[in-house]
Amino acid sequence: MNAGGLLCAKYGVTRESVLALNVVLASGELMEVGHRTVKGVTGYDLCALMIGSEGTLGIIVEATLKLRPAITGEVPTIGAYFAGVRDAADASAAVTAAGIRPAIMELLDRNMLVAASNATGVDLASQGNTYLLIQTDGADARGEAERILELVAPLATSAELTLDPESAATLVDVRRRGFPALEAMGAMLVEDCAVPRSRMADMFERVEAIAAKYDVFIACPAHAGDGNLHPTFVFEGSAAAVPDEIWQSAGELFEAALELGGTLSGEHGIGLLKRRWLGAELGDTQLALQRHIKAVFDPKGILNPGKMFPQEHPVSPSGFREVYGSRADN
Amino acid sequence: MNAGGLLCAKYGVTRESVLALNVVLASGELMEVGHRTVKGVTGYDLCALMIGSEGTLGIIVEATLKLRPAITGEVPTIGAYFAGVRDAADASAAVTAAGIRPAIMELLDRNMLVAASNATGVDLASQGNTYLLIQTDGADARGEAERILELVAPLATSAELTLDPESAATLVDVRRRGFPALEAMGAMLVEDCAVPRSRMADMFERVEAIAAKYDVFIACPAHAGDGNLHPTFVFEGSAAAVPDEIWQSAGELFEAALELGGTLSGEHGIGLLKRRWLGAELGDTQLALQRHIKAVFDPKGILNPGKMFPQEHPVSPSGFREVYGSRADN
Repeated sequence: MNAGGLLCAKYGVTRESVLALNVVLASGELMEVGHRTVKGVTGYDLCALMIGSEGTLGIIVEATLKLRPAITGEVPTIGAYFAGVRDAADASAAVTAAGIRPAIMELLDRNMLVAASNATGVDLASQGNTYLLIQTDGADARGEAERILELVAPLATSAELTLDPESAATLVDVRRRGFPALEAMGAMLVEDCAVPRSRMADMFERVEAIAAKYDVFIACPAHAGDGNLHPTFVFEGSAAAVPDEIWQSAGELFEAALELGGTLSGEHGIGLLKRRWLGAELGDTQLALQRHIKAVFDPKGILNPGKMFPQEHPVSPSGFREVYGSRADN
Repeated sequence: MNAGGLLCAKYGVTRESVLALNVVLASGELMEVGHRTVKGVTGYDLCALMIGSEGTLGIIVEATLKLRPAITGEVPTIGAYFAGVRDAADASAAVTAAGIRPAIMELLDRNMLVAASNATGVDLASQGNTYLLIQTDGADARGEAERILELVAPLATSAELTLDPESAATLVDVRRRGFPALEAMGAMLVEDCAVPRSRMADMFERVEAIAAKYDVFIACPAHAGDGNLHPTFVFEGSAAAVPDEIWQSAGELFEAALELGGTLSGEHGIGLLKRRWLGAELGDTQLALQRHIKAVFDPKGILNPGKMFPQEHPVSPSGFREVYGSRADN
């Protein structure tokens, strides 16, 4: 795992907090990688190689983590509504461009806002089309929040700053309950593409166009602080049998993310669901190198077999229909 | 390179700021690794593997870096003198333990302080035995500096906080000119071990004991904010012909660093000088894996040949005398 979440906007993903790992290798040997010191550069960084390797190089049994001082001061929270997703994406890009680093900057598109409002009974959906939730922390938390409000308000239909912890907790809770709310609506497939933050508005437009083209339901919340979108398909039936048009839509989503300079996965990884597209992002040369590295660590292929790497007949993203017939690959 | 420097205490080493790299492989192919997005987790992190690989896996020809907003506010600077290096190390450990993250926290031991004072004409050496230079930046820079002063002063013989940029620049300049000052005294060999910050005082004692045992001159400045010491040998003659007792001292230094939970190299890497000790830190299993990875990227051994890996007859640190006769290994 190289897990993310709401606070990555300021504090980064798991990788940034791992100093050392104990790993059981395919041979059964225990190996320690990384350093228990803050700095260390002896040989190749196998600790970084292990993080996000999805159990395909070894089994992590112990981790040494960096700690940060807990946040003790106030955490001002901004809730802002926008006429559409482009305005909200532009507002978050403006915050980033100003060099301010909020702890949380989450975007809820129309579909997620409606689902979360219905599920929680906190009716944000009637107050605007698209919602941006921003929280700051640290020594200059209030000053940063005030500067953010100045940047965001001109693009918003309404925007409010609260210092009250209870009101803030309610707003954050609406975001946290968004995914369960979508899940309650039907079968769900969550995607995880990331694009440069300046291209987020473009990516939202591509998501809307793809949803319209295939007539599928996509809710699209985003960790706007780091350009990580979670286009989330909701459909009738079972998540074990994803309909054709959803896979086609997902394929076009990934193509769009790559075209915009982005990536297949911001934080979830590849697993089974995305392995068919991995080659399209990495290219043949890097994919071959990665397979060789896998073979160095796991010559018999016993570690999390089948995960991450495309099967023997890799296909281009636009050709994914060819292998799609095999449900075992999903 | 995974370069460091004075500001790593707060801002980390090079790795933390690299998003993507273009690399020319041994085959002559150009490969892009990493992501131009803030987050990304597709396949193994070959970008992290490349950083600090010392040119042994490929040649980096382009890098995409994260930017941080420039510091515009005041940078309060503290200069503190101590009766000895243990008090100074304890003072810096107290700052770390309090959860304060200064931008700069540099320790100058007696030998470096004298050399730097003589060279710059800024006579810090007559004001105390050991010197600690601390600088804070960011929104709460002054508040942090005041709290640091409260922590440091009880352990110091004297300590002063200045907000005057010119005085601060003079103090930082003394540190920056320390190495050139040592270099002017004779031939120089700079080491680069790192230990957990809580063990810094112990490591300084080991350095002093080793200098006494072999009757060699070691100045030992440290990036105290991240536990990275630079024991620096100065000797008569030429850096191309390092005397036996210096190599023996260096070997004992590394053994001491490893015993204290540390590492051979905080930021400089392995190169030729430290390759004989790499196996002692990594262990046989990891060293073998690293050699296999090297072979995947560079089957013909044409990329920076001879660097980083010990030659065919690896030795334990205490056995390094056996291969020491071969100067080609230095």
